[in-house]
Amino acid sequence: MSTSPSRWMTIGDFLLRRLEEAGVGHLFGVPGDFNLELLQQLQDAGTLQWVGNCSELNASYAADGYARLNGMGALLVTNAVGALSAINGVAGSYSEHVPVVCICGSIPLKSIDRGLGMHHTMADGTWDRFLGAYAQVTAAQARLTPHNAVTEIDRLILTAWREKLPVYVELPSDIAYLDIEVPQARLVLAQPPSDPERLRSCVTAIAAHLSAAKSPAVLVDLDADRFGVAADLMGLAEKMQLPVAVISTAKAVIDETFPYYVGIYNGQASEPHVRAAIESSDCLLSIGYRPIEVTTGDFTASLPADTIRARSHSVDIGDDNYQAVTLQEVIRGVRDTVPHVTSRAAPQRGATAAKTPAGGSTNLTQAAYWQAIQGYLRAGDVLLLDNGTSYALLGLHLPPDCTFVGSINWGSIGYSVAALLGTLTAAPDRRHLLFLGDGSFQLTAQELSTILRHDYKPVIFLINNGGYTIERGYLGKTGQYNDIATWAYADLPRVLRPDTTARSFVVKTPADLAEALSAPNDTLILIEAVMDPYDAPAAVMASSNTGADIDYGPRGPQHRDNAQLRPA
Amino acid sequence: MSTSPSRWMTIGDFLLRRLEEAGVGHLFGVPGDFNLELLQQLQDAGTLQWVGNCSELNASYAADGYARLNGMGALLVTNAVGALSAINGVAGSYSEHVPVVCICGSIPLKSIDRGLGMHHTMADGTWDRFLGAYAQVTAAQARLTPHNAVTEIDRLILTAWREKLPVYVELPSDIAYLDIEVPQARLVLAQPPSDPERLRSCVTAIAAHLSAAKSPAVLVDLDADRFGVAADLMGLAEKMQLPVAVISTAKAVIDETFPYYVGIYNGQASEPHVRAAIESSDCLLSIGYRPIEVTTGDFTASLPADTIRARSHSVDIGDDNYQAVTLQEVIRGVRDTVPHVTSRAAPQRGATAAKTPAGGSTNLTQAAYWQAIQGYLRAGDVLLLDNGTSYALLGLHLPPDCTFVGSINWGSIGYSVAALLGTLTAAPDRRHLLFLGDGSFQLTAQELSTILRHDYKPVIFLINNGGYTIERGYLGKTGQYNDIATWAYADLPRVLRPDTTARSFVVKTPADLAEALSAPNDTLILIEAVMDPYDAPAAVMASSNTGADIDYGPRGPQHRDNAQLRPA
Repeated sequence: MSTSPSRWMTIGDFLLRRLEEAGVGHLFGVPGDFNLELLQQLQDAGTLQWVGNCSELNASYAADGYARLNGMGALLVTNAVGALSAINGVAGSYSEHVPVVCICGSIPLKSIDRGLGMHHTMADGTWDRFLGAYAQVTAAQARLTPHNAVTEIDRLILTAWREKLPVYVELPSDIAYLDIEVPQARLVLAQPPSDPERLRSCVTAIAAHLSAAKSPAVLVDLDADRFGVAADLMGLAEKMQLPVAVISTAKAVIDETFPYYVGIYNGQASEPHVRAAIESSDCLLSIGYRPIEVTTGDFTASLPADTIRARSHSVDIGDDNYQAVTLQEVIRGVRDTVPHVTSRAAPQRGATAAKTPAGGSTNLTQAAYWQAIQGYLRAGDVLLLDNGTSYALLGLHLPPDCTFVGSINWGSIGYSVAALLGTLTAAPDRRHLLFLGDGSFQLTAQELSTILRHDYKPVIFLINNGGYTIERGYLGKTGQYNDIATWAYADLPRVLRPDTTARSFVVKTPADLAEALSAPNDTLILIEAVMDPYDAPAAVMASSNTGADIDYGPRGPQHRDNAQLRPA
Repeated sequence: MSTSPSRWMTIGDFLLRRLEEAGVGHLFGVPGDFNLELLQQLQDAGTLQWVGNCSELNASYAADGYARLNGMGALLVTNAVGALSAINGVAGSYSEHVPVVCICGSIPLKSIDRGLGMHHTMADGTWDRFLGAYAQVTAAQARLTPHNAVTEIDRLILTAWREKLPVYVELPSDIAYLDIEVPQARLVLAQPPSDPERLRSCVTAIAAHLSAAKSPAVLVDLDADRFGVAADLMGLAEKMQLPVAVISTAKAVIDETFPYYVGIYNGQASEPHVRAAIESSDCLLSIGYRPIEVTTGDFTASLPADTIRARSHSVDIGDDNYQAVTLQEVIRGVRDTVPHVTSRAAPQRGATAAKTPAGGSTNLTQAAYWQAIQGYLRAGDVLLLDNGTSYALLGLHLPPDCTFVGSINWGSIGYSVAALLGTLTAAPDRRHLLFLGDGSFQLTAQELSTILRHDYKPVIFLINNGGYTIERGYLGKTGQYNDIATWAYADLPRVLRPDTTARSFVVKTPADLAEALSAPNDTLILIEAVMDPYDAPAAVMASSNTGADIDYGPRGPQHRDNAQLRPA
C-alpha cells in the first residue's frame, strides 16, 4: 500500500472527510435505517450540514442544483427504495453533466455474506440489482468494503469531479463504524495534466485555423460551464473579436451583455443573425456540442464542415483526433497563442427587448407576463427554469452575472422546485428566481416545505393554466389527459409552514403582476399567475408542433384538425 | 405465423386491447410528448379510463394498489424521466409480487435507427440504458417494434400475470399508429396446467405427510393471496382442523375470524401460542415463505426440519423437488385428497382486544389511538398501511372480508397515499382506511389531490408526531435528522381542491378522536392525530431496537446511552 503518512479513521468519517475535501458542505437526502449510522457520524463530526428532504427524488434534484453552483453535490439515501426513488434525478445529473455523489446506506455486508433476507430488497437473496440499475446512469459505482473503501471512495469522487458526471456508492450499514487506515493527505481535485506534445500540437492547430479564417466563431454547449472555460472563451473571443453563440442548454454561460455574444443557436429556429454567424463561419470552434432535437431546431442545425469539436478531454480538428488534452488547458493555450484582432466588424446582436412591462386590467397574457419578467431581472440572479411554457425565459435577455439552472437535455418536469432548494443552499446570498408551470409544480411541490423551513427567500413564478400547455402543442389541444387538478397554489406555503412570513399573490392582470413584482424580497414570494390554457409563447408552440412530427411520424394523430395548440 | 383468424389493428390499439382483455380497466400515469399518441388512442377507443397522477412514482404506487385488488395494473410514463421516476414503485411490485405492466412511451424508432440525439436521454446517442435499469427490477422487458409487437405484448402481459411480477415495455412514439396483423382471439389469462404425473405425486406426498402428522399446521405468505389459494387453504384447514398462521406480509390473507386462524408468526416476537403451533408442528405446510429480518423476529424464526415448501410453480418435500406444478392445482388437490379430521383440539387463538375505545381529555397516546381504531374497523374494509409506527395495525384483529394492502418487504415510505388512489379506483364501493405517519405522508402528499378530484371517500389516519419515530428506535432518539417540518396537514385538502367537502380533524385527545370517528363516511375524512414523538407501540420499538444490532453490528452507535427510543 501507499508509503504516504496515514492515520486511522472509521469508514464513515473518511467518506465524510473526502466529501468535505471535495468542497461538499451539505448533504441532501432522507433518513432510513440503513443510513442512520452515517447521519450520526455526520452530526458528531459537524463538518457537513444535513439537509433533510421530503423525498429522495427531491434530494437528487437538490444535490444537482447545489452542484451547479458549488461544483460538486451529494445525497444520502437508503437501500433500494431510496436509491431507486432518487435514480431519475441522478440520471438527470448524467444527462446534464453535473458531478453528484449518490451515497446509499445499504444492507449490511453480513447479510450479503450469509444470504439473509432483508427488507428494502426483493426478499430473494439478491443484492446487486440496484448497483446494476445505477450502472446504467452513473460514471462509476461501487459497494464499499473495509478493504476497498480507501481506493473506491477516492476513485468515485475523482471520477465525478473529472468527468462532471454522477457516481453511486453503497455503504453497507455494518461497516461505517469500522476503522481503516487512510491517507493523511487531502484529496486533490484536479484534471490530470494533458500530454505535453498533444496539447502543443492541438493548441497550435486550433490557433492556426482560427487565425487563417475570415469568419471564425464559437459555439458553446454546457460543458463550457461545467469544465470552467467560459471566462477563457470570452477572453479568446475578445482577443480575436469572435462572435460567440450558445446552445439553449448553455443559456447564460456566456454573459449575455458580453459584446461578442450573439445569442442562442437553434438551427432554423435561431434569430437570422445567429444562424448566419454560425452556419456561415469558415472556422467554428464548438465546445462540448451535443445536438438534440430541441437544441437544433428539430435537426435543422447545420454546422460548417470544418467545425473544430472540443470536448472535455479530446478534440477533433478535421481528420485529426487529439486525446489526453483537457479542455481548460486547450482553451487557455489557444487564447494565449492567437494574435490580437482589431479589424473585425462588431458582431450583430439581437434587439434588446422592451423593459417596460405592460400595465392594465385585461387578462394576463403570456406575452405581457414575460415582458414584465424581463424588466424584473437583475444582475447576479440565479434563474431556475422548469420545462413547459416557461421556456420563454430562454428568449429573455439576461443582465450580467446571472446563472441559469435548467434541464433542457433531461427535461424532467418538477426538477426545478427541489433544485431551487439546492441552489439556495449553495448561494444563499444571491437572489433566486424560479419559473415553472402548475403541471411541473405538482410533482415536487412539497419541497417548498424545506425551502420555507430554512427561511430562504426565493421568488417563485408559477403559471396556473390548468395543465400541460406545452404538451397541447404536441397533441391533445383539448385532450383531457392534458388537464390537471386546480390547486389553490398561493395557499400552499401556509400549510407547509403555518408560521410562514411568505407572501403569496394570485395575479390575473398585468396590474396585479406589477404589484406583486414591487413586493420587497425579504421573504419567500410566490406569484401564482392565472393564464389561459391555450395561451402559449409562439416559439414554444412552434417547437412542440414540429416536435410532434418527429415523435409520431407521418401516420400520427397530430395531422388531425385541431389536434395541436398552434401559435396564435 | 399463426393460422388463427387475424385482423388489422394499430400497435397502440392492440396494446390497449390486450390490457383490457387482461382485466385492466384503468391506466395510471403522467403525460409526456412520447406517450401522448397512446393517450389519444386510449381516449378515442374509450375502453380503458385514464387516471392522471401528480408524479410517475405515485402512478407506479397507484398501479400497484389497483393490481392488489384488481388482479393486474398498468401505468404509462414517458421516456427515461418518467420511467426512472416510476422505477422504485415498479421494483416494489416485484418485491411484493404484484403484476403491473409499466408502459413507457419512448423515443421514436427513427431516432434509434439514425442515432439522433433526443431530449429525455443522455444526449449521447445511447438508448438502452432504461431498459437495462428495468431489467434489474422486472420479470420481462421489451422495446416494441412493428415486427415483434404481437408476440412481445402477449409475452409480457402473460409473464406478469403468471409470475405475479411487473414487466416493462417501451412503445416508441412513431409506431403506435402503424397497422399490424393481430390475432382475433382474446388473450387467455391462465397458468399452464401442471405436469399430470408430477401433480399427482406431489399432491399424494403432501396429503400423506399431513395425514400422518400429529400436529400439522400451515404457514402463509403473500403468494397465497397473489396466486388465489387463500380460500382453498381455509378449506384444507377446516377439513383437517389445521392451525393456520400468516407472515405479517400476508396480514388478512386468511380471514382473521376463521376458526383455525391463530395469528402472525414472527419468530420470537410471535405470541407464544402461534410460535408453538408453527415451531412444534411435525408437518408444516408453508406457502410462498420468504423470510426477511422483519418477518422472522430478526432471524429467530425456526421452522420444523420437515417443512413442506410450496411455491407458485414448484414444491419441496424433504429431499424431493417438484417442478411443473402450479400452486392452485396443488392446494386444491391436497384439499380434495386428505381425510376429514374431527378429533383435533381447537387451535388456541389470540385474546380479542377490547373494542371499547378510551375517552377522556388527556393527551392522545399511541395505545389509546390503536384501541380506538380497533373499534372502528368493520367487515369488508380495505386497510392500507404505510411504514412506521402504524405497523401497530398488524397487531389489531380484523373483521371478516378485510383486505390488507401494505409493503412489508419493500417498505418504501409514501407508498400508501398513492396506492390508496389505486385501491379506490379498483373497488370504489368498499370503505378504504389509510394508516400512516407524517414522515411517510410528506413523500407523496400531493396524490391526495387526485383522490379528491375523483370524489373518493377514504378515511385517512395521519399521525403527526414531528418525524420518523420508527427510526428513533433504530438510532437518533433525539437526532435532528429524524425531525421533519411540521405541516398544517388538516388544511391540505382545501389547497388541493378548494371546493372540497372533505372533513379534516386535528385530534389531540381520545375524546377528539372519538368525535372524529363518529363523522359520517360520506366524504373524504382526514384525521390528523397529534402525538408525542417519543410515544411508540412497544412491538414496533422492540423490532427497531433489535434491527439496529443487525444493521450496525457490534461497533455501531446504537450502544450509546440514549441512542435509541425504547419501549416505555
